[in-house]
Amino acid sequence: MPDLHQQKQQASSWFSQLQAQICQAFETLERDAPDELYPGAPGCFEKTPWRRGDGKIDEGGGTAALMRGRLFEKVGVHVSQVYGEFSPDFRDQIPGAAEDPRFWAAGISLIAHMHNPRIPAVHMNTRYIVTTRDWFGGGADLTPLLDEQRNMDAPDTVAFHSALQQVCDRHDPEYYEKFRAWCDRYFYLPHREEPRGTGGIFYDRLNTSDFEADFAFTRDVGTCFLDMYPKLVKTRMHEPWSAPEREEQLVRRGRYVEFNLLYDKGTTFGLKTGGNVTTILSSMPPVVKWP
Amino acid sequence: MPDLHQQKQQASSWFSQLQAQICQAFETLERDAPDELYPGAPGCFEKTPWRRGDGKIDEGGGTAALMRGRLFEKVGVHVSQVYGEFSPDFRDQIPGAAEDPRFWAAGISLIAHMHNPRIPAVHMNTRYIVTTRDWFGGGADLTPLLDEQRNMDAPDTVAFHSALQQVCDRHDPEYYEKFRAWCDRYFYLPHREEPRGTGGIFYDRLNTSDFEADFAFTRDVGTCFLDMYPKLVKTRMHEPWSAPEREEQLVRRGRYVEFNLLYDKGTTFGLKTGGNVTTILSSMPPVVKWP
Repeated sequence: MPDLHQQKQQASSWFSQLQAQICQAFETLERDAPDELYPGAPGCFEKTPWRRGDGKIDEGGGTAALMRGRLFEKVGVHVSQVYGEFSPDFRDQIPGAAEDPRFWAAGISLIAHMHNPRIPAVHMNTRYIVTTRDWFGGGADLTPLLDEQRNMDAPDTVAFHSALQQVCDRHDPEYYEKFRAWCDRYFYLPHREEPRGTGGIFYDRLNTSDFEADFAFTRDVGTCFLDMYPKLVKTRMHEPWSAPEREEQLVRRGRYVEFNLLYDKGTTFGLKTGGNVTTILSSMPPVVKWP
Repeated sequence: MPDLHQQKQQASSWFSQLQAQICQAFETLERDAPDELYPGAPGCFEKTPWRRGDGKIDEGGGTAALMRGRLFEKVGVHVSQVYGEFSPDFRDQIPGAAEDPRFWAAGISLIAHMHNPRIPAVHMNTRYIVTTRDWFGGGADLTPLLDEQRNMDAPDTVAFHSALQQVCDRHDPEYYEKFRAWCDRYFYLPHREEPRGTGGIFYDRLNTSDFEADFAFTRDVGTCFLDMYPKLVKTRMHEPWSAPEREEQLVRRGRYVEFNLLYDKGTTFGLKTGGNVTTILSSMPPVVKWP
């Protein structure tokens, strides 16, 4: 018999720990960014705790960590731990919720929009969800903004996929291909006939009947991200950029907005079911152009 | 017996005529804008004809008219006349389409985003749709960007509503209250608990069994807009604005994007059913901030 209470605590505690480590790594980069390219004072994460619901019943909450910096133009690293009952509309869509509408969910969610258009934007999210069943989900994907970087042979994309593949291969030889394809299908804009970025991995409803193994995989995805993305930023942050590159970045960010508001389930589901609006929409890029 | 062929021709021809008149009025304003507030050369409408479908079957098309100017930061005034068959998914949602999936639709659609944050953005759209039934729909609504102007007593909003009420009252004493309330319900962002702007009128499926009367009402809405909005712009365009007002405008525009991509039926329906992406998304504001 799994000790669900302990599993929830372990998962939730991991997400908070990962949030703290990522925030620290990003603040270090923010301080180390060269002054000649990034004038002004380095930014710091502002942490805002929030509670879910109307305050009468305890429905959990979270901590939004948002930094508006000079290198990190806008980055959110949010954790949440929420619980309650699914409304009748959703019960059929969620595994195990038809039998009992109660749920518990915890996760970490991150989106970074960089000032330098030569540094790709990134998204990472992992979560643990418990109904009458329980499973992990999440992934990480890269969004280069410049056309010249938006191909599978571009160095950042190669490094990103290679790191994720190593993580996957340590756990199951089939994970990488499966989760990579899932990511490509998910982060796609049909109306533009364009992928959002150059992919990564995406997984959901992962339950191999071995909580320890699935949790270890989810931790590895987070740890991999924590190692990989700061490295990428550290290399790229010394590259100066041109005004046309900045313009290209702002226009390309429009696609990010289109994807999140038209298709992203986390965003649309969250907004339409009374989620924390400020946290959900902190994923929006700070400046966007539709010329 | 109504002569549907003639009704279609009349409606379609009116939308094109209105497009030409609005473009001309806006170009005049663009030229008359004071140089000290709006440096640079006045913009002109760029007209782009487009055809619908894969080119094998004639499915109609339209003309997108887009101006990127100094006073009109970005304005689209589009007409279209399209026909074909509704896919099985949509037949039950469209009046008269269950009996016969063929449809014909023509309309004009306009969204103006002004450079000066003190001039409200505006949206106007009217259309004539024919299935086994036929009806008019459309409306006009105002979106002031500055908080100080976002109330029902603000002069622009009072004038806007008053002009539309006069149009409505000439046709039916119940139209204004009914269509005003419909507009308020439609242009609302539930996740923000905010209206998009200060309203106007919105009507759909209008068929009183008197084509001439319904068509006259729809023409009056267009003519009223053509008279009223340029007047509003002409007055406001001489007002200088501050940097904080511009900032407030750019942030408020984010709500416009959120509404159009999350809720607007024309946008989401159009994008998900193979509409003309460039035309549909020309409604996006030129520069937006989510700080």
